[in-house]
Amino acid sequence: MSLTWKRLIRFEAVDGRILRGEPLLPKNKEIDLGSKVLVGDDIYDVTGKTKLSAETALVKKILSPLAQSDVPILRCVGLNYAKHIKESGRKPPTFPFIFFKPTTTIQDHGEPVVNPKIAQNDQADYEGELCIVIGKDAKDVPVEEALNYVAAYTAGNDVSSRKLQRDPAYAGVVPQWGFFKGFNTFAPVGPVLVAASEIADPSQLQLKTIIDGEVRQEEGVSDLLFDCKYLISYLSQGTTLQKGSVIMTGTPGGVGIGLTPPKYLVPGTQMDVFISKIGTLRKQRCLCLNAGHASNQIIP
Amino acid sequence: MSLTWKRLIRFEAVDGRILRGEPLLPKNKEIDLGSKVLVGDDIYDVTGKTKLSAETALVKKILSPLAQSDVPILRCVGLNYAKHIKESGRKPPTFPFIFFKPTTTIQDHGEPVVNPKIAQNDQADYEGELCIVIGKDAKDVPVEEALNYVAAYTAGNDVSSRKLQRDPAYAGVVPQWGFFKGFNTFAPVGPVLVAASEIADPSQLQLKTIIDGEVRQEEGVSDLLFDCKYLISYLSQGTTLQKGSVIMTGTPGGVGIGLTPPKYLVPGTQMDVFISKIGTLRKQRCLCLNAGHASNQIIP
Repeated sequence: MSLTWKRLIRFEAVDGRILRGEPLLPKNKEIDLGSKVLVGDDIYDVTGKTKLSAETALVKKILSPLAQSDVPILRCVGLNYAKHIKESGRKPPTFPFIFFKPTTTIQDHGEPVVNPKIAQNDQADYEGELCIVIGKDAKDVPVEEALNYVAAYTAGNDVSSRKLQRDPAYAGVVPQWGFFKGFNTFAPVGPVLVAASEIADPSQLQLKTIIDGEVRQEEGVSDLLFDCKYLISYLSQGTTLQKGSVIMTGTPGGVGIGLTPPKYLVPGTQMDVFISKIGTLRKQRCLCLNAGHASNQIIP
Repeated sequence: MSLTWKRLIRFEAVDGRILRGEPLLPKNKEIDLGSKVLVGDDIYDVTGKTKLSAETALVKKILSPLAQSDVPILRCVGLNYAKHIKESGRKPPTFPFIFFKPTTTIQDHGEPVVNPKIAQNDQADYEGELCIVIGKDAKDVPVEEALNYVAAYTAGNDVSSRKLQRDPAYAGVVPQWGFFKGFNTFAPVGPVLVAASEIADPSQLQLKTIIDGEVRQEEGVSDLLFDCKYLISYLSQGTTLQKGSVIMTGTPGGVGIGLTPPKYLVPGTQMDVFISKIGTLRKQRCLCLNAGHASNQIIP
């Protein structure tokens, strides 16, 4: 896709407006971050109707590059890094394991992940992931055409409540890959959309997840068992991947539950997800609110 | 919620317009179905801004009462009818088993369920279900207030590809409750939204699924292990159930895979889902298209 921008942020400007635009990188740390301003309604427009204007705005705060209302749904892949599967003694799956996160999980860059009351005695965990953003409706797309449907790439964190996901006492008959990964704020995404034109081969990207300053996950996207083009093709079978949909491609080894002993998120844990050519989805702090379920705390 | 309508259909009028309105039931089969016309943008409006007008339109074709764009997401419950769980020798789950269907699954009343190429050697199955439609954003809602967030009820069919859902050779490490229930057309919904004001106690409703004229599922909603108010409360924990969201509450015994021998959908199978006080989601015929994945049929 030939978009009118190369890198796109969504931000609150110093004058309070919520805008989108292409960041103008500061020459040194003394200079404020500016942005060219995108004008138009369709960030995936290829006709030139939505375009960067001459206006420059000063950025007060970077938001998620995708508002919740920009995204129809997040489609996610479990167990997709080959080395991680091998390490854990598992057999590689025949087909991708797919689950969904509702768009209410999307959280802004730099804003906290709120672990809800139901999950506070739980084992909340991070999962750094490369995210694909679909730029036009895709259905029954062959592998060799699949990357033509990609508007952009970004970084994401598929935050997960492990105990509630896996323990039969809580999860029920089979592991729950939906509800316990689906709380509000459980999908920080960002900091920027990088147009597909700038990333000819996503398998060359490097992913790193840094927890409280410690590198926990570090892997090349080339280790994906089902790569970006396969995933788009596979997911589009009998299914419309709507423009704006996000595909979270899976996470490599090094998640908290896989460490000895396991290291779960605690209040204040800071999570950064770095992907080369994209940047760092930064400073997602874990937060536990006392507010929560008013009268019927279902898991105390 | 005090809505401005009691029963709401979405339809194509004889003049070609797509409208919503309250049906005017014909006195006998010779008379065409008419409808009062709803004017306004928000079907869940309680202020009277969106309301039934004096205009009456003739209905050419009833559509799904909810367009895909009306619904943020469908949240679904697995294994929720107590007798069905007992019959199958399973232990009742401690908490609801939750999965999602994307909104692209929504199909109109009377239109075919299209079994995609990937699932044509599969065991496609019906699941008749009571659907809850959320009328205002709900988060951390106590059980005793939960029904205040219900705009309406309707009937639905949670069409499922069993083999792909359950067989480890296809599903992978754990059963797949998302992707193989998520193909386009796999969630017929309708025929009408019945306002919550008309259904004081949803547990009094009766559900019946009729396959090619044979009653296969027949159960009272009172048999739900987790009832409507509990489900809303449970699902709203740490999670915003957005206005317009649909909750499919689960299916009773009598699905095709549970019969001896199993009876799956074949091309032409006709599925009707009846719920008392709501009506019949009628004539969903199963269809297998030869069109499908262009060059990379992943499951032949």
